[in-house]
Amino acid sequence: MAKLTKRADDYAQWYVELVLRAELADYAPVRGCMVIRPHGYAIWENIQAALNKMFKETGHQNAYFPLFIPESFMKKEAEHVEGFAPHCAVVTHGGGKELEEPLYIRPTSETIIWAMYKQWIQSYRDLPLLINQWANVVRWEMRPRLFLRTCEFLWQEGHTAHATEPEAEEEALKILDIYRRFAEDFMAVPVIPGLKTDAEKFAGAVRTYCIEAMTQDKRAIQAGTSHMLGQNFAKAFDVTYQDDAGQRQFVWATSWGVSTRLIGALVMAHSDDQGLILPPRLAPIHVVIVPIYKTEDERSTVLEFASKLRDALPKDLTVRLDDREHYKPGWKFNEWELKGVPLRIEVGPRDMQQNQVMFARRDTGEKRAVPCGQAPAEVAATLEAIQKDMFDKALAFRQANTREVKTYAEFKERLEAEGGFFVADWGGTTEQELQIQEETKATIRCIPREGGEPQGPCFLTGGKANVRCILAKAY
Amino acid sequence: MAKLTKRADDYAQWYVELVLRAELADYAPVRGCMVIRPHGYAIWENIQAALNKMFKETGHQNAYFPLFIPESFMKKEAEHVEGFAPHCAVVTHGGGKELEEPLYIRPTSETIIWAMYKQWIQSYRDLPLLINQWANVVRWEMRPRLFLRTCEFLWQEGHTAHATEPEAEEEALKILDIYRRFAEDFMAVPVIPGLKTDAEKFAGAVRTYCIEAMTQDKRAIQAGTSHMLGQNFAKAFDVTYQDDAGQRQFVWATSWGVSTRLIGALVMAHSDDQGLILPPRLAPIHVVIVPIYKTEDERSTVLEFASKLRDALPKDLTVRLDDREHYKPGWKFNEWELKGVPLRIEVGPRDMQQNQVMFARRDTGEKRAVPCGQAPAEVAATLEAIQKDMFDKALAFRQANTREVKTYAEFKERLEAEGGFFVADWGGTTEQELQIQEETKATIRCIPREGGEPQGPCFLTGGKANVRCILAKAY
Repeated sequence: MAKLTKRADDYAQWYVELVLRAELADYAPVRGCMVIRPHGYAIWENIQAALNKMFKETGHQNAYFPLFIPESFMKKEAEHVEGFAPHCAVVTHGGGKELEEPLYIRPTSETIIWAMYKQWIQSYRDLPLLINQWANVVRWEMRPRLFLRTCEFLWQEGHTAHATEPEAEEEALKILDIYRRFAEDFMAVPVIPGLKTDAEKFAGAVRTYCIEAMTQDKRAIQAGTSHMLGQNFAKAFDVTYQDDAGQRQFVWATSWGVSTRLIGALVMAHSDDQGLILPPRLAPIHVVIVPIYKTEDERSTVLEFASKLRDALPKDLTVRLDDREHYKPGWKFNEWELKGVPLRIEVGPRDMQQNQVMFARRDTGEKRAVPCGQAPAEVAATLEAIQKDMFDKALAFRQANTREVKTYAEFKERLEAEGGFFVADWGGTTEQELQIQEETKATIRCIPREGGEPQGPCFLTGGKANVRCILAKAY
Repeated sequence: MAKLTKRADDYAQWYVELVLRAELADYAPVRGCMVIRPHGYAIWENIQAALNKMFKETGHQNAYFPLFIPESFMKKEAEHVEGFAPHCAVVTHGGGKELEEPLYIRPTSETIIWAMYKQWIQSYRDLPLLINQWANVVRWEMRPRLFLRTCEFLWQEGHTAHATEPEAEEEALKILDIYRRFAEDFMAVPVIPGLKTDAEKFAGAVRTYCIEAMTQDKRAIQAGTSHMLGQNFAKAFDVTYQDDAGQRQFVWATSWGVSTRLIGALVMAHSDDQGLILPPRLAPIHVVIVPIYKTEDERSTVLEFASKLRDALPKDLTVRLDDREHYKPGWKFNEWELKGVPLRIEVGPRDMQQNQVMFARRDTGEKRAVPCGQAPAEVAATLEAIQKDMFDKALAFRQANTREVKTYAEFKERLEAEGGFFVADWGGTTEQELQIQEETKATIRCIPREGGEPQGPCFLTGGKANVRCILAKAY
């Protein structure tokens, strides 16, 4: 197999080659769209299973709303239509006829969902209403990139309705913490939870919270957002409830989502020049067993031995015994490294004689002999160690590439020289934000939840600092 | 609560009221579309889990292909475009501009998928390719009906590629048997697997297999289809492979699908004038425990007892303890009957004194006292009995309403008088089929796989019979 472009030579090219060669996704013959291939979709299924469990444990239920949004609905919330309508795909014909009212393909579903909530919410007893949907959405992208920005993508979008502002705020933050835990515990990607600036918040939100991860080229990647929507959509769609004193009140709302973009973040955070490195808790295949033999006699004994080993491994793991005849062991090693299987077990005649097998970790490359009797327990322990070590490595990388800066000159110089995340005390106006973006191509990623108070003057103006923010170039 | 319309009075009205009142779905404010509410979507999730397991056990993998199909792709297979294009929704604008080529919203994905298979299939080693996707599709419906016919619906569509015709035929029949087993073992709905006539087959298929179920108003409902596509799509998209002798060969194909229509079939097969009756293997909630008390003192002891009972029940079951204060037990009984929970357990002070609880089966209405110590085991056994009895009842109903007819006069008379399924020996031409449909509104549902050979002359013409078919009015 031809080698991948190296990360150090061309990170963007490495990423695209890897996604294609590892068969996570392919370009579709439709502008800006992609096909998610089985290896990529299996990761998505694992993401869905983990998030569904967390959503359901916190009282959320799944439902499904229409793909189509009438144009008149899109226009009901002023900021929302301004933010989304220019990026929509529009259906003008159906069943062979021109439609009386164009239908927008949902870019997000607030408007269609709040039209239904108007019918479902009457009394405080109907609240909170905690609904999530898994769906495809379409946003016309000018510069598409596999998984990171595609015209159509898959996501989940939660839409909740609450009686009071504090309950809605609590919900938005509860989900933000679910996203943080998911990123850290499953993706093995450390993230910074924070608040978006006004310029970056969701069109129609009062506040947008986000989690921000770091890629190996030291850029930021937004990995999930949770919006406190206030009463904006309730007022646009006239959704009120009768409180326990018999008064009508507008409902408070949140919405929140993560998408197939997470798969792009996962690839960018961990993988290397040989291929994918997948965390065990999201890997479609946990262990591959590769038999090594030269003669037909060896083949049958080694395969029998390998089958027994496979059957002895924990049942909750997905184990692949690669018994394909037409491929040599080295070729198989390369393929499974490309596809990111966390643990490879090699079984050969010499190992069998010593009643042992060889373990090879994908993340570190470490190889060691393990006595056969200990293999089942050691597989479980090794996968746990890989999950933890991947997180620790990513965290250390982020820490090593996060710097505090006091002045704009220092920021610009180090941004160009080293990249990474920059912590700065900042005045916080939209004008300043746009200036920074225009002059440096970096953006305010967020005001971290646990970033503390400003300790000095604004890094940009030298005037009063109001917030402590994180800046970076971003995907 | 107001009562539902009775099935005997107006079956169609009963169905719609039930779907709305049990909160399975709601009308969407978009023509012909529906919202699948949490109770309905939870059934769909259980359907997905059961089918995914069967698909994966037989070597299929999930993937995801684009929503949009370029108009030029739709036109590549002649029968396919003729069958589907008039019923499509068409995107003409994206990102604020008119598109150069209109994009069809997929009504089914053969064309976009075979455009990808052209790139992925080179050699016999790439075959078979066994891919499924879970997706939304859009077909413009003139007479929409909740779950049964909606403009947008959710489904799975399998698309497989094979080296030889017998392998493709085997795959189409293997899936048909998965669908039969799913309908019978999970939905508790007996089905007749058979072959569609040429007039009824999928646009672009060589043969369409189907499963046909019977509703309580004795109509047929098609519950799944599996198509042997021959080499039609391979030729339209020029998909060939190199065989082991180095020759290029066109690939053989199948496609197959079931949709959210299954939820409609499920409702129509089992439910009654009180509400849904759901088979335990697909029910979102298996057991509801309703505490019965009059005083505050009773309330706390009964609730404590009920909580312990809940915690003692098997962990693989979903158990709801309905401890809501504002509702009386009778109101709760009605609500959970409406929503189809298979088993209700009532816990009151008098039962507690006798160390027993009351079991009430949703399907039969049977009530009996069960000693507390036996409750966990009895719950599991009762749910199994409900699953089996629901199937047996539906099978007996179908058998009692299936009749063999020898002449067209007899068929027409009994169709009007009694309805149901009719078995007849038939000549088998499309002209005859259209005549029957026009004169009686009944259709040839299928030529059953296990229907045997014709035993007499054609029931319509008295001439030679070539097949033995099933006729019925259908949804």
